[in-house]
Amino acid sequence: MPVNLVAPNPADLHPVPGVEIGIAMAGVRKANRRDLTVFTLAEGSAVAGVFTQNRFCAAPVQICREHLAAGAAIRAMVINTGNANAGTGADGLARAQRSCEALAGALGISATQVLPFSTGVIMETLPVDRIVAGLPAALADRQAAHWHAAAEAIMTTDTVAKAASRQVSIGGATVSVTGIAKGAGMIRPNMATMLGFVATDAKVSQRVLQHLAREAADRSFNRITVDGDTSTNDSFVLIASRQASHAEITELESPEGAALREAVIAVAQQLAQAIVRDGEGATKFITVRVDGGRTKDECRLVAYAIAHSPLVKTAFFASDPNLGRILAAVGYAGIADLDPSLIDLHLDDVHVATKGGRHPAYQEADGQRVMKQAEITVRVDLHRANGPNAAHATVWTCDFSHDYVTINADYRS
Amino acid sequence: MPVNLVAPNPADLHPVPGVEIGIAMAGVRKANRRDLTVFTLAEGSAVAGVFTQNRFCAAPVQICREHLAAGAAIRAMVINTGNANAGTGADGLARAQRSCEALAGALGISATQVLPFSTGVIMETLPVDRIVAGLPAALADRQAAHWHAAAEAIMTTDTVAKAASRQVSIGGATVSVTGIAKGAGMIRPNMATMLGFVATDAKVSQRVLQHLAREAADRSFNRITVDGDTSTNDSFVLIASRQASHAEITELESPEGAALREAVIAVAQQLAQAIVRDGEGATKFITVRVDGGRTKDECRLVAYAIAHSPLVKTAFFASDPNLGRILAAVGYAGIADLDPSLIDLHLDDVHVATKGGRHPAYQEADGQRVMKQAEITVRVDLHRANGPNAAHATVWTCDFSHDYVTINADYRS
Repeated sequence: MPVNLVAPNPADLHPVPGVEIGIAMAGVRKANRRDLTVFTLAEGSAVAGVFTQNRFCAAPVQICREHLAAGAAIRAMVINTGNANAGTGADGLARAQRSCEALAGALGISATQVLPFSTGVIMETLPVDRIVAGLPAALADRQAAHWHAAAEAIMTTDTVAKAASRQVSIGGATVSVTGIAKGAGMIRPNMATMLGFVATDAKVSQRVLQHLAREAADRSFNRITVDGDTSTNDSFVLIASRQASHAEITELESPEGAALREAVIAVAQQLAQAIVRDGEGATKFITVRVDGGRTKDECRLVAYAIAHSPLVKTAFFASDPNLGRILAAVGYAGIADLDPSLIDLHLDDVHVATKGGRHPAYQEADGQRVMKQAEITVRVDLHRANGPNAAHATVWTCDFSHDYVTINADYRS
Repeated sequence: MPVNLVAPNPADLHPVPGVEIGIAMAGVRKANRRDLTVFTLAEGSAVAGVFTQNRFCAAPVQICREHLAAGAAIRAMVINTGNANAGTGADGLARAQRSCEALAGALGISATQVLPFSTGVIMETLPVDRIVAGLPAALADRQAAHWHAAAEAIMTTDTVAKAASRQVSIGGATVSVTGIAKGAGMIRPNMATMLGFVATDAKVSQRVLQHLAREAADRSFNRITVDGDTSTNDSFVLIASRQASHAEITELESPEGAALREAVIAVAQQLAQAIVRDGEGATKFITVRVDGGRTKDECRLVAYAIAHSPLVKTAFFASDPNLGRILAAVGYAGIADLDPSLIDLHLDDVHVATKGGRHPAYQEADGQRVMKQAEITVRVDLHRANGPNAAHATVWTCDFSHDYVTINADYRS
């Protein structure tokens, strides 16, 4: 059951001029499943991507990196579900390459202008013949309004399609920012999640777009975790079709750059949080905020230790204020010179612990009240730095339920 | 259901001359539960301890460290279940200290000659008055033959008592090595597990005993993980009553030292593996061995990434050879320059992956056969070093089942 997450209304998703999307059934893993998605991008589009840091990265991720590095303008993307094409060695690379070549041939472009993406089971051979056979139908299906259909087509164990959209005024022009993403397990993105696609028609330089893609990933997909498993296929792509009529944005610090940044990050955060809300088996949406650190990195260490602890996550599932488990996670997070006697712990507005121990005014009934909520904020103050020197970090996660075990014990069957 | 683990037969546990154990009901958390254990050690005993690296370490752990550092001969230990006395601040320290003082008073020794241990729920006030009131009954109960009763008294969510015992001939004398331990959740010991006690009557110097305690912990309790949560209370204590008639062991490299080392490590490994076999919700016992690393540390990184992955652990629970999840964990373990195209993966005798992809001869039926077993060895060869330069590491873990969630969602209720 997703946490406070409803399927997007197709009418709320603004088409992005210059971006068309087509979907088809290729039978990659299951028959009668819309499992193949094609994006085509107008001439002049700029594309930036960030990808998994998993060393066992999937064949399509390797090819995306190569094609983006080659520098030819990206004009199309091909995405399949049902098979991750990861752990497939040289043969997997050849198969991903073949899907790019087939799409390039149909569009009259070069294969290096195509980015491939795959999601699904690892270490199985990609049925590339079926993907190639499905391309004509996907191309014929293309429309600018197909964002919602694409959000559905890229789902695996997701239970709700994930899409977000904004419009923002830039230099007198109305600019759209629309994106889709999918989860729902093997989610602890390191660079970006598998898969997120956000497009805008803003006129923005390639350099600025690349910066913005990294910042948006870092403030959204890179701050979520469902199970701590960093996927082999994480990919986040930010597309600018550059068709809006405003003057080109060449600095993020300009008023126009700031407006675009805010819209892109808002869409990316909404998508990233949607992945957590629909995390495998999730019943709670948890925000973990750590304040008072000396560096952002040490705040993240602590936030992730809490967010990954199976004991903390099962306590949230049970609505059990067994909050010593959070202190234990703070203690083993890896800050060697941490002084536990300085630490404060809040659960929403409830002050649970202070100076390394239970707060004198803390009542279990107050903890219980917050733990029963569907959305909970855990706030830890390390008191290792204060005022403007203090770093902080926020991570979003979900609880750990019976359904997580059920889903992952049954995923392939 | 513990995996291939049966309760020890009391008759198989050799008493250790110079070590007496008494148990009583103190009502720490529940009535009519034998929850208080006292050890008394003969004059001349040597004691070495290794403790949790969790910065939020419990009050009794802090006091154990102080008392061992103070250098007075340790003559007694007091152990309670039902309350961890962790996350309890200065008040917790005072309460742990009071339990030492009460036991010291009854025995006519100094409080610094007593080591305190607690296990149970975190961040609750230790009912030290009830512990002090229970001490006379525990002292009156003392016998050298009470190892089995103590193994039962220290259990929390353990389903089977854990004890191991050996006898070894050293310099013509028959020497006993007997130990007990408890798990079963918050288990990813970092120095030692909560709690392990091993005693021998071997005549061994304090310096050698300290070395042996660290080596034994490092090759047993520090190589297991149930859920990746490093406890606040992990403590491993190695006791030598020094009553055996052989000449004093002053070097572990001597034949006598080697005989003692082998017996102590065998007992420690049997206890550590028993904790995994009885890990919360465990249905499988998994050995993860990583070969071909450049350093032991990087082999351990990979082994723990596999052993902690919820996706890998649920696949074992389901007996589902979804083995790409293991490759994904290898990839995100944190070796920045890992070359995935070199990696081999075996599941027992089945060669699953080679050169970064599925082995040509691998059949899913073979993977399925091994996955259905109760004991499975995962073997990864990184091929980053060969021959005598290659490092390796072994970690023992269990699967992740519905019962883990149930146990930890219900633990306090």
